[in-house]
Amino acid sequence: MAKEAAQVAPHVYKVLFENERVRLLDVRMKPGDESDQHSHPDYLLHALEGGKVKLTDASGQSAEVEIQAGDTMWREAEEHSALNVGTTELHALFVELK
Amino acid sequence: MAKEAAQVAPHVYKVLFENERVRLLDVRMKPGDESDQHSHPDYLLHALEGGKVKLTDASGQSAEVEIQAGDTMWREAEEHSALNVGTTELHALFVELK
Repeated sequence: MAKEAAQVAPHVYKVLFENERVRLLDVRMKPGDESDQHSHPDYLLHALEGGKVKLTDASGQSAEVEIQAGDTMWREAEEHSALNVGTTELHALFVELK
Repeated sequence: MAKEAAQVAPHVYKVLFENERVRLLDVRMKPGDESDQHSHPDYLLHALEGGKVKLTDASGQSAEVEIQAGDTMWREAEEHSALNVGTTELHALFVELK
């Protein structure tokens, strides 16, 4: 399995809190910022500032996700690289469940 | 067990997302705002704007909690009433784990 997000791209993902049940990440991704392949367990994403991100899985398949400020989304465990392809800095909280 | 926060005080606690594993609450509590006795499962609190809150349990014992913007805290399941005894509006996200 790929490494955790904060290990791979500490300039994007900052661990605010972690215990045996949950990890809270503060995520700030400027336009053009990218993070190499990494893994997330199931997690809840809540956006404070929106952005447009391209996610690419290990097989090379990619998808763009447009996120608005205030959006909340549940995402199943996944591995991908990420690139901010938009014009705004994405600021989000990720609550990763263990 | 006391009712859930959002059932008791919907003017303070707004459910942004809920599934079988997690419930995300947007919490806004103005000075003087209060919520009657309610329960939380284990939860993670992340403050966007700070405030000072007095929590009182069913036996009448109370404690004041001062929360700064950016604070993150893990709280074990609890039941209490809450009152904003400070001078600022508390704005926080509560991630309740089921």
